[in-house]
Amino acid sequence: MNYPDGFSFELLHQDGKARLGRLTTPHAEIETPVFMPVGTQGAVKTLACEDLEAMGAQIFLVNTYHLYLRPGADVVEKMGRVHGFTSWPHAILSDSGGFQVFSHMGRNKITDDGVRFQSHFDGSYHDFTAEKVIEIERQLGPDIIMSFDQCVPYPASHEDALKGVKRTTAWAQRGIDQFNRLEETGDFPKQLLHGIVQGSVYEDLRRQSAEELLEMDFPGYSIGGLSVGEPKDQMTRMLDVTLPLLPEDKQRYLMGVGYPEDILMAVERGVDMFDCVLPTRNARTGLVFTAAGPYNFRNAAAAEDYLPLDPDCDCYVCQRYSRAYLRHLYSVSEITAHRLASYHSVNFFIRLMEDIRLAIREDRFMKFKQEFLARSQSES
Amino acid sequence: MNYPDGFSFELLHQDGKARLGRLTTPHAEIETPVFMPVGTQGAVKTLACEDLEAMGAQIFLVNTYHLYLRPGADVVEKMGRVHGFTSWPHAILSDSGGFQVFSHMGRNKITDDGVRFQSHFDGSYHDFTAEKVIEIERQLGPDIIMSFDQCVPYPASHEDALKGVKRTTAWAQRGIDQFNRLEETGDFPKQLLHGIVQGSVYEDLRRQSAEELLEMDFPGYSIGGLSVGEPKDQMTRMLDVTLPLLPEDKQRYLMGVGYPEDILMAVERGVDMFDCVLPTRNARTGLVFTAAGPYNFRNAAAAEDYLPLDPDCDCYVCQRYSRAYLRHLYSVSEITAHRLASYHSVNFFIRLMEDIRLAIREDRFMKFKQEFLARSQSES
Repeated sequence: MNYPDGFSFELLHQDGKARLGRLTTPHAEIETPVFMPVGTQGAVKTLACEDLEAMGAQIFLVNTYHLYLRPGADVVEKMGRVHGFTSWPHAILSDSGGFQVFSHMGRNKITDDGVRFQSHFDGSYHDFTAEKVIEIERQLGPDIIMSFDQCVPYPASHEDALKGVKRTTAWAQRGIDQFNRLEETGDFPKQLLHGIVQGSVYEDLRRQSAEELLEMDFPGYSIGGLSVGEPKDQMTRMLDVTLPLLPEDKQRYLMGVGYPEDILMAVERGVDMFDCVLPTRNARTGLVFTAAGPYNFRNAAAAEDYLPLDPDCDCYVCQRYSRAYLRHLYSVSEITAHRLASYHSVNFFIRLMEDIRLAIREDRFMKFKQEFLARSQSES
Repeated sequence: MNYPDGFSFELLHQDGKARLGRLTTPHAEIETPVFMPVGTQGAVKTLACEDLEAMGAQIFLVNTYHLYLRPGADVVEKMGRVHGFTSWPHAILSDSGGFQVFSHMGRNKITDDGVRFQSHFDGSYHDFTAEKVIEIERQLGPDIIMSFDQCVPYPASHEDALKGVKRTTAWAQRGIDQFNRLEETGDFPKQLLHGIVQGSVYEDLRRQSAEELLEMDFPGYSIGGLSVGEPKDQMTRMLDVTLPLLPEDKQRYLMGVGYPEDILMAVERGVDMFDCVLPTRNARTGLVFTAAGPYNFRNAAAAEDYLPLDPDCDCYVCQRYSRAYLRHLYSVSEITAHRLASYHSVNFFIRLMEDIRLAIREDRFMKFKQEFLARSQSES
């Protein structure tokens, strides 16, 4: 598959294996490495489009599974697809929903054809196949869409993981066929389809998965099935096996990762795109990311602390509000606390990627990484 | 009592009994009639200071009872009193907490000295007296503070309401004495103290309460104990009795009111200040205020509605987001829906007051009122 009209990926600079790139879609020019805030149900939790724009976010992620269930792909399509529906004129990426339907253990039945699953909302039954998922993603209309893959849980036996790789390969090809069939109708916006490498923590399966997908020549590759509970060194090892196989001139997306230290590890190895729910999910429990490491503003010590969440942060929350105030709002259940903390933490990831890009551009990525880790580990 | 240094109220113009005024505090010049968003626990629910500033709000309200319980008056004082604690550099008004402690029926014991009540958080016992409440309010440090009053529930017998008036009068005087004692210590910022007229729905008691408070010569009067369940014509009648007794050259604050039609009714009679939780509370149930009347965006009809919440509104929410999107966010429990709807509705009240002030200035308040009501009733 070629890059569709309006899409391209340019590799601008390399510092070791760390890559500075530019991913262009019809809705945005995205500098990579990029962190994509997660707006599972069409909004990044507690935030609005204005917030993401103020941070300089150029792309966010929606989830096919969630939008398919509610409000339904037909409604989203009718309301101007995801861009019109969410009023976000910049880039959007959709996850295929594979992770979601496979992680509802006991509620789904997997065959070579696809998966029958129950809605987590109302228990109704639904079928996802490789074809169906692509059809939904084309209806929804994000710039970048994912193939339907089978993400096996961790730990998985080699046998189960191999089964997952085989299905992922078969579904990738069926997805491409469906994508092209629908393309011919002319009814859909231009979209870029990623293949997703699976294989659990088995080097041979990661290689097999990557090689089989490479034959289909996707205009972009995702690495899935990591950050699902495996030890960190396993994730690192799988990246070391997988990334050298992927074409240099296409963007690589490590799905669902992760902590700042994971992102730095993966950028070092040549990953270009990241997404993670951590900044918003943790913020709603009182835990924010700061230059000095994780900080929990529910701590008793915050009660009379004049400092902002992160004294080194230039976001509007840190420019104005004290830990004491945010702790108070949190403790009296004011959701403004969730919102302000979420803003800070998502902004932290956006700024981290800016700093990473600058460091790559200036050929000092490893130094940046070491300093960042030293600082966040010594003070946290 | 005189207006303290840095405080004044100027009557700029009258249109009938409707008044255009300017209430000056050390932190703001507030054009009246004004609507004060309610930030009970130190934040207007789901909103941040930036939101209120964007709307042009010059003052918001905090609750003494809530801040006394959490985080505690000492903490607020230490963190720079309410202005420093909330990072709001403009004006702040505090309610005395009387309404809250008296509305927790069965959990409080009222004597002539004050009230013993149980915290709604943890059941701990606390005593509020006229002196204690003023002391807390001086510690908290809002620009405008309220005397401790007894707000009797509706309906109340004449006997009970009379008892409430007598206590309110006695507590008002004790509050003034305490206020002046604390003033002499020099430890507190300049603050303006309001007396609160009570009397339930009895004309003679409203007169008695107003006359007794007038002898104490407060630099501002509040009208309490209304909008507590009584029929609307009773509220109107009580204003007709009370307002003519109040000095023309001091601001009048109708506490806890209300719906746009109530505000218009009261402005017509000479009220200058309002507060109400309706815009935020209703927004969190999916109900917003619009020029065409109340609108419930949870309605099924909103599911595919491209229109904004209020097609006549210029707020950022209405400039960007559709009813369909907000309905979706609400239905999947994204609190961004609560936030965007709250922003719209608070902004609606701020704009309403701007329109009211302009109408008074141009001697067309009654015409404005009629047109506003005709429109909101015909279309809602």
